[in-house]
Amino acid sequence: MSAAPPAISTPDPIGPGHRVTLGETLPLHLDCGLDLGPYQVAYCTYGRLNADKSNAILVCHALTGDQHAASTHPVTGKPGWWGTMIGPGKVIDTDRFFIVCANVLGGCMGSTGPKEINPATGQPYGLNFPVITIRDMVNAQAMLLDHLGIRELFCVIGGSMGGMQVLQWAASYPERVFAAVPIASAARHSAQNIAFHEVGRQAIYSDPDWREGGYLAHGVIPKNGLAVARMAAHITYLSEAALHRKFGRNLQNRERITYGFEADFQVESYLRHQGSTFVERFDANSYLYITRAMDYFDLAAQSGGNLANVFKGSKTRFCVVSFTSDWLFPTPENKEIVRALNAAAANVSFVEIETDKGHDAFLLDEPEMFSTLKGFIDGCAEVRGLNGNSSNGARS
Amino acid sequence: MSAAPPAISTPDPIGPGHRVTLGETLPLHLDCGLDLGPYQVAYCTYGRLNADKSNAILVCHALTGDQHAASTHPVTGKPGWWGTMIGPGKVIDTDRFFIVCANVLGGCMGSTGPKEINPATGQPYGLNFPVITIRDMVNAQAMLLDHLGIRELFCVIGGSMGGMQVLQWAASYPERVFAAVPIASAARHSAQNIAFHEVGRQAIYSDPDWREGGYLAHGVIPKNGLAVARMAAHITYLSEAALHRKFGRNLQNRERITYGFEADFQVESYLRHQGSTFVERFDANSYLYITRAMDYFDLAAQSGGNLANVFKGSKTRFCVVSFTSDWLFPTPENKEIVRALNAAAANVSFVEIETDKGHDAFLLDEPEMFSTLKGFIDGCAEVRGLNGNSSNGARS
Repeated sequence: MSAAPPAISTPDPIGPGHRVTLGETLPLHLDCGLDLGPYQVAYCTYGRLNADKSNAILVCHALTGDQHAASTHPVTGKPGWWGTMIGPGKVIDTDRFFIVCANVLGGCMGSTGPKEINPATGQPYGLNFPVITIRDMVNAQAMLLDHLGIRELFCVIGGSMGGMQVLQWAASYPERVFAAVPIASAARHSAQNIAFHEVGRQAIYSDPDWREGGYLAHGVIPKNGLAVARMAAHITYLSEAALHRKFGRNLQNRERITYGFEADFQVESYLRHQGSTFVERFDANSYLYITRAMDYFDLAAQSGGNLANVFKGSKTRFCVVSFTSDWLFPTPENKEIVRALNAAAANVSFVEIETDKGHDAFLLDEPEMFSTLKGFIDGCAEVRGLNGNSSNGARS
Repeated sequence: MSAAPPAISTPDPIGPGHRVTLGETLPLHLDCGLDLGPYQVAYCTYGRLNADKSNAILVCHALTGDQHAASTHPVTGKPGWWGTMIGPGKVIDTDRFFIVCANVLGGCMGSTGPKEINPATGQPYGLNFPVITIRDMVNAQAMLLDHLGIRELFCVIGGSMGGMQVLQWAASYPERVFAAVPIASAARHSAQNIAFHEVGRQAIYSDPDWREGGYLAHGVIPKNGLAVARMAAHITYLSEAALHRKFGRNLQNRERITYGFEADFQVESYLRHQGSTFVERFDANSYLYITRAMDYFDLAAQSGGNLANVFKGSKTRFCVVSFTSDWLFPTPENKEIVRALNAAAANVSFVEIETDKGHDAFLLDEPEMFSTLKGFIDGCAEVRGLNGNSSNGARS
């Protein structure tokens, strides 16, 4: 049986990053019960690993993010999604730390996911890809770090679904995580968030070009469905105040309403743009799988329903961050994490940042977040003995 | 040219209600500049009009509501959408008042809208129906009341888009409105709400069965797109707290997650049901037109951008109601109405009702709302001289 090349050509998703094949001898045992192997993980690194490999920071990306956190995106040509946070002298200082960011399992930027070729069939996995969980993603990252020879992470950090991975890291590998920073996250996905994800998935299922998940073999992509999913989700990433401030009821390149269904309002034009650009860089089946992984996330359920038990005995230093206008992962859900950590006698600080930018604030220029995280990371680095030039060897 | 019957047969939308043809001699002049006429308005009435025609209450329905406010719905067989409010001895007392509820212009339950036959072509209007506004809907209702011989309304009341119509009535016909009750409403549609509407419209446009609006002639309906639109909108009608209370992360008829894309969670099953039942009773093009009318609503813009000017000199008694957990038409937007009414020296009371039920609270069993509105309506009736049996003649 010869492997048919995917009919949709996409730019190289790896760019200046790397890709490694893992699980060849020992497969990844997934939560669903299946074994996955071999599989691939695509990742980027920034900065240099020091001699004793103690300065590594794992950055975990959100639902539609990827490994290109601080370098130009090879598909869109845009700057990395966390370029504000990662760089020389920045909060996540590439002069001092070695940063690893990996495309999640199930993703579409080079890590094994529904878009990639199933070695067993020579065809894209499509819906034959197993349903994965946040813990599966984290276990795959752990195998990547094993491959890189990094036993302990100085810090694991991420926002939204990235924060879920941070919590799972601290729960699954407490001895490997010195500091953990879950931002705008939750220990379990709420009913409302599952509902929004289900709407997005239904939009994809409804697109005839989805072809029951087999679109790649048919040379089509369900771009309309994926765009609708993105538009619905995008509203939840912002706040009403931010939408009002940015767009209000301003009209798009016209002086009056047209009494029609064109994008009279700027906010409509903005949303349409969000939808149409998203489909250029993201795979619809990946969207299904990753939203499902988030829906399934319920950390307490891994420990008999008691979240504090998950963190019992943890020596990890936590900094939990939330945003006042985030209604997707609102402050009360972040406080639940803090309460559980306190109940587990863990070392935890918590900061709620005042902003009107909504959930996406973690991706934006948010000075109070920068100063909060700089203080926490620098403090942890001092305790970890990472502040001297001699110990990190990363200065050029 | 012979009129092709619509290929989709639908149950009689009129039921025990009425339908009248209006605008035959004098057409309805629409905001878009076109004249509409003749056109039809389908409506229901409850209670009896008194001798001096002073006891009429106009109930205005919301986006997906209709005229069957207090009687069995002829398509779904379900009770009227405001049966909790309207009836003998209820807040809107059918023993004392004569209640009129009309399907809005652009609707799909018998009033002229995109589903109805365009007399000029013998075909369903589809996208040839003119884009209408909340003011157009209200002007059509005013013509219905002229037809019924009712000059002054004792009260105009409605929630959500119904509240927009209430405000427009008070603005356009102040001398015809003795009391006005806009519930969970706004004087203009917010950027976030326009955004959610645009997502719903895009879901409909994306459905190949929409056929550029011409689906009726093709014997199909864009049920997938309309269902996705409904699901996205439905989330906004509830609150996170209500979703958490009703569903949480409860599983649907199973003991554990299935690692698949079936509706594992009750909230998913509930949403899918909301989508699939909605398409049985609602027309996709009507959904486009009515959401557009709401987007276009900006009452202050009708009076130079100053909302207070709209109500200058008004003698109408207002009662503005909002709900604490309503994030679609949150309290601050209702307070904007109150502030403008105060600035216009109008007679206004305002009540924010504590509830976790979200925007849809106005449709639900909400005792504090009932007692608030009963007090307001009874008080107004006393001032209007409607409390004696002799004056209303509606007792049987």
